[in-house]
Amino acid sequence: MFQQGVNAMPGFSTVSSSAWARTVLTQTTLRAAPSLVAACLLGPAQAAEGMWTLDNLPRAALQAQHRFEPDAAWLAHVQRAAVRVGGCSASIVSEQGLVMTNHHCVTRCLAELTTAQRPVKSQGFLASKPDQELACSGLEVMQLQSERDVTAQVHAATQGLTGEAFQRAEDAVRARLSRECQQDQSATRRCEVTVLYRGGQYVLQQYERYSDVRLVWAPEDAIAAFGGDPDNFNFPRWCLDVALLRLWRDGRPVKTPVYLAVEPQGPKPDELLLVPGHPGQTQRSLTVAQLERLRERLATQTIPAASESRGLMHLLSQRQEPTRTWALQAMSSIENGLKVQQGQLQALFTPALWAMKQAEEQALKAHVRAKPALLARVGDPWSDIERAQQVRRELELEFSLLSDGAAFAAPHFQFARTLVRGPVERLKPDGQRLREYSDSALPVLERRLKAHTPMDLVFERERLEWSLTRMRSVLGPDHPVVRQVLGDRSPAQLAQTWIQQSRLHEAAERARLWDGGEAAVTASADPFVALVRAVEPHARALRERFEAQVLAVEREAAQRLAWAQFDRDGRSRYPDATGTLRLSYGTLKGWREAGVEVPTHTHVAGLRRRHTGAAPFAMPERWRSAGATVADDLPFNFVTDHDIIGGNSGSPMINRQGRWVGLVFDGNRHSLGGSFFYDAASNRAVSVHPAVILESLRSVYGAHDLLRELMGGPVPAR
Amino acid sequence: MFQQGVNAMPGFSTVSSSAWARTVLTQTTLRAAPSLVAACLLGPAQAAEGMWTLDNLPRAALQAQHRFEPDAAWLAHVQRAAVRVGGCSASIVSEQGLVMTNHHCVTRCLAELTTAQRPVKSQGFLASKPDQELACSGLEVMQLQSERDVTAQVHAATQGLTGEAFQRAEDAVRARLSRECQQDQSATRRCEVTVLYRGGQYVLQQYERYSDVRLVWAPEDAIAAFGGDPDNFNFPRWCLDVALLRLWRDGRPVKTPVYLAVEPQGPKPDELLLVPGHPGQTQRSLTVAQLERLRERLATQTIPAASESRGLMHLLSQRQEPTRTWALQAMSSIENGLKVQQGQLQALFTPALWAMKQAEEQALKAHVRAKPALLARVGDPWSDIERAQQVRRELELEFSLLSDGAAFAAPHFQFARTLVRGPVERLKPDGQRLREYSDSALPVLERRLKAHTPMDLVFERERLEWSLTRMRSVLGPDHPVVRQVLGDRSPAQLAQTWIQQSRLHEAAERARLWDGGEAAVTASADPFVALVRAVEPHARALRERFEAQVLAVEREAAQRLAWAQFDRDGRSRYPDATGTLRLSYGTLKGWREAGVEVPTHTHVAGLRRRHTGAAPFAMPERWRSAGATVADDLPFNFVTDHDIIGGNSGSPMINRQGRWVGLVFDGNRHSLGGSFFYDAASNRAVSVHPAVILESLRSVYGAHDLLRELMGGPVPAR
Repeated sequence: MFQQGVNAMPGFSTVSSSAWARTVLTQTTLRAAPSLVAACLLGPAQAAEGMWTLDNLPRAALQAQHRFEPDAAWLAHVQRAAVRVGGCSASIVSEQGLVMTNHHCVTRCLAELTTAQRPVKSQGFLASKPDQELACSGLEVMQLQSERDVTAQVHAATQGLTGEAFQRAEDAVRARLSRECQQDQSATRRCEVTVLYRGGQYVLQQYERYSDVRLVWAPEDAIAAFGGDPDNFNFPRWCLDVALLRLWRDGRPVKTPVYLAVEPQGPKPDELLLVPGHPGQTQRSLTVAQLERLRERLATQTIPAASESRGLMHLLSQRQEPTRTWALQAMSSIENGLKVQQGQLQALFTPALWAMKQAEEQALKAHVRAKPALLARVGDPWSDIERAQQVRRELELEFSLLSDGAAFAAPHFQFARTLVRGPVERLKPDGQRLREYSDSALPVLERRLKAHTPMDLVFERERLEWSLTRMRSVLGPDHPVVRQVLGDRSPAQLAQTWIQQSRLHEAAERARLWDGGEAAVTASADPFVALVRAVEPHARALRERFEAQVLAVEREAAQRLAWAQFDRDGRSRYPDATGTLRLSYGTLKGWREAGVEVPTHTHVAGLRRRHTGAAPFAMPERWRSAGATVADDLPFNFVTDHDIIGGNSGSPMINRQGRWVGLVFDGNRHSLGGSFFYDAASNRAVSVHPAVILESLRSVYGAHDLLRELMGGPVPAR
Repeated sequence: MFQQGVNAMPGFSTVSSSAWARTVLTQTTLRAAPSLVAACLLGPAQAAEGMWTLDNLPRAALQAQHRFEPDAAWLAHVQRAAVRVGGCSASIVSEQGLVMTNHHCVTRCLAELTTAQRPVKSQGFLASKPDQELACSGLEVMQLQSERDVTAQVHAATQGLTGEAFQRAEDAVRARLSRECQQDQSATRRCEVTVLYRGGQYVLQQYERYSDVRLVWAPEDAIAAFGGDPDNFNFPRWCLDVALLRLWRDGRPVKTPVYLAVEPQGPKPDELLLVPGHPGQTQRSLTVAQLERLRERLATQTIPAASESRGLMHLLSQRQEPTRTWALQAMSSIENGLKVQQGQLQALFTPALWAMKQAEEQALKAHVRAKPALLARVGDPWSDIERAQQVRRELELEFSLLSDGAAFAAPHFQFARTLVRGPVERLKPDGQRLREYSDSALPVLERRLKAHTPMDLVFERERLEWSLTRMRSVLGPDHPVVRQVLGDRSPAQLAQTWIQQSRLHEAAERARLWDGGEAAVTASADPFVALVRAVEPHARALRERFEAQVLAVEREAAQRLAWAQFDRDGRSRYPDATGTLRLSYGTLKGWREAGVEVPTHTHVAGLRRRHTGAAPFAMPERWRSAGATVADDLPFNFVTDHDIIGGNSGSPMINRQGRWVGLVFDGNRHSLGGSFFYDAASNRAVSVHPAVILESLRSVYGAHDLLRELMGGPVPAR
């Protein structure tokens, strides 16, 4: 399954070590593409390439290849029906506010709702009436209402500035625009200025915010993630990776005319298929120097840290409940992240990729050098970015541990930091705060802080001890922060004491401290508050240096790169993914693996053959006893050549009539290099077929009302 | 501490994943050396650079810098006093066959000797009389008696051959020469043909083999490895990393005139210091293509696998005894390996290293191209080697898992394979067998197989389950071997069943099967024997392809590289380390770290300051209560600029009079790039000072007889 797309703090997602990482993939992927360089340099986009913004679709290609010209009504409908949930995508699929996404997008909610009496994760869940639906306290659904180009305003505010001054000015104008848009309606509205083309374009987006989201149906973990880590990012697959949620407001389900009806037959051969969704992050426009640093970081920091976690979780998942469930949950996320990161690293060890990137960079440099006026405006952003990579190399490890907080891997630490920083930041003018405390971000932050967040203290203690041990090993026992934090005690002693003494796992205690402001926090004797205070000067200094000397420099230089590219190509290219709404297009398509053609569809018969009885290849009881009511030839999963990435999980796949014909949940392993380039020959998206969703609701789960609701809506306007 | 040097199967050490791996090092190491390229290209060797063979010392440099000219008697004495133990170095230090090496070189023996009544590892051990000394069943001491250049014989046998034919001929002639030398004296003699300069020179070495080695004294783990993983490869240090063994033969301690006397004062400033030892493996003569592949493998295979192990061991070491002890033992080895591998990977991400290696390669290519006769003889070995790297890339992952056996991480599997292969291989003529079954290797193999090998079956089951899980994840559930091995069962089920049913943890059962030959093995129903049989066809095919298309190609091409280098430089360079006897030279020397000069010595006062009471910074009870009898200003560890590497652990450091003035046990973290080049500015060796060994024997351990024995010998001839 894809990783979820966007972090709370997008600028930092690439240094976050809470984004996890180990599986060496078999290496047929990119090496088997000798024509890669040629292919990628032929034109701005290969067939089906691109995560396009809705205002800049590849209309000529869609018309030429598929005779498709979406009108404004079609686009407006899709824009509102394709929503965002957490770091995933989703869609509204009934008039009564039913929302469809992947099972793997709501696993945290499932774990939180799981009790001994109600084993939601292992046994699945079905609410037979609306009042049985269970609130997912951590989930919010965001629906894009409108967007407006604000490039001129931002450029006016940042013109002529560089480095830190540039970044401050950009932050300030983004915060102001968001605030003005959001007004005092933060309970139901969120406004964000999205940065496209790494600074070439700024778009102010206004979202409707649904924060009462309830679980309606989830199948058993064993069928949603059938094949587990071994089959993840592989195909053929048999995953019923679906969950249904419902939007509530004011104590009632939300009624809406904007939803996608189902096409139970699924996709037809050669039919144009469209995927509206929220791809999280691609790195296709990074410079060679940035890619080199990224490779080094993956190899020396990200993957080793995640691999250790994996080993730890392997054993923690043998403990008794509830530790076992939390460890399995963490394991699944870690293993998924590791496959992504190893796939990226493999791609970054492919000579053809470097040849392609170097050629692209040289071509753009030549274009700039040939036009004196352009050169005067653009300068040499490549060198500026390269210098920033030296600082990354110096700082990133320490930044990840101490500033990002990977050294203190317990939610308590993150909560405590929010509590300590909150009062300080809220006193500052909006544009001068740390980004996550801006007026536009505060409501979400506060909601998360105060939300009931179940956790297992044994699990948290073990993970914390490990992260402290790692910090000491990596930074050395003589690092001033390590000395200060550990003093005369061992990681085991500290983790034990802190977790035992802290009350920050209680939502009420966090709410009390937040609402009490600085006075309450100052009076608190919580060990994690003390820890944050001890680390804070160093963590702040690191973050300031990282933002000023790395992020600000990269951002400002990338903007100049975008200008150079616009000058040459106009708007014929799509921007890197940013977790915001995009449209991909494609068709049903297999690929050749080791000389053998992989078929587009799997069926129930294949699932039955793959069942061994031992996890992760064990169908749950309901499926084993389903018998002939679920036919062997019922389609299960299928592949298409859409250009998607983590964050697209849960995206609906629709036909030109706007009916959904699939639910995207993964890519094949060749898609992992998709961070850096699109490989038309083998990059494939993997979706759940509507037939298996509908049929299983009917004959496996007996969810007749839900089936009727899904089938009942009118076809949306085309 | 350094990794031990040589694997049982040297050709395979670079693909072995039993060589473990994770700690991201702080990155000041190599980046701080901008003058690296210039420095390394100035001449064949920097001051103190080189792991020299005793027949080709840098006599001019030794004479010019130190006015030292060792004569034949000096060299002969050192050659016999500096012995090899396992993958470590050691020295004979008394007339009664006392052998000194590092505590970390005998940890496996200490773990095996540990019982609830006799906690050798945690509490240390002292035999007050010879009959209390405890046999280390797995240890052998090898003493180099003589060596003879056999380059002409080998070249005659391999002339004109390439690839597999070359390798077969080389194997055959090496086996024949070893066999002729060894005759029927395999109980006390071992002969090996060592390949120097990667094929430029072949040397037949005859060793005296001591296989009754007994533990005399070991301090507590907590002082031997004080600072643990956090301080490992760092300095300042306070490690009493020493153990004393004794050679026995025919039921009596071995009397010998060949030993090193101690110089209790340790090394003097500016004094010439010499380190005879057995450095295991360097990679300084690899081509750029080989280094690139090595980097990729470290990043995508070795380090991720070892990192997972580390996480696993972290939790396993919290289990109850004896699992805890075995996990801690494994953890220490894994963490050590990880620091080495991460240090190597860091070095391989240093632009200056690549600039240096590329320049060196270009220079040698130019030399060859300029001389037609040389070109005709040498050809283009660089391209041949580069092609072999493509095969490495294709095979190494699978090779490591299925052929090397990392997928089946239990000693049972290795034992079973020896039992299955033994009868088959022994039927073949000597030169045609798998290398580890040659006549010269068989005695050691058989001894290991039949030796009592304590193990903890809980530990083995957990590790095996993990390795099976990893195999499935990495190769995918549809790999034919994965399908065949797992069938319908899970890794947990299989590991449980196999470990429960197998009897291969019993030495007697292994001896029965070995002595029973093919009939006994065929009749065996042991699950590991069955597993080996199932995997064998695939594993053999992989190994054959790997040997023919990678190792043979690299070996033959490397020989031509050596010829090119000899043509240009004569014998002015030293060969890459090969686990055989070398001499390094240097002096006491600190280095600058982040602008601050690191002093050469540590003292007991520093140990007392660093003691926190929590492991790994807790002095053992005897040291805490030692009080003023152990003076604060007693020297503890010190640094010198010797060029050493893993395998040098346990090497004596001697002065020109041949007295030992230190015991090498580690390098600083800058030494980790030493695999690829010697950095005179900051690469440092770390040794135990004789004063702390002698004083602790006297006032901490009350080992007065032992102290007398160490002090009593006459000064060897100079």
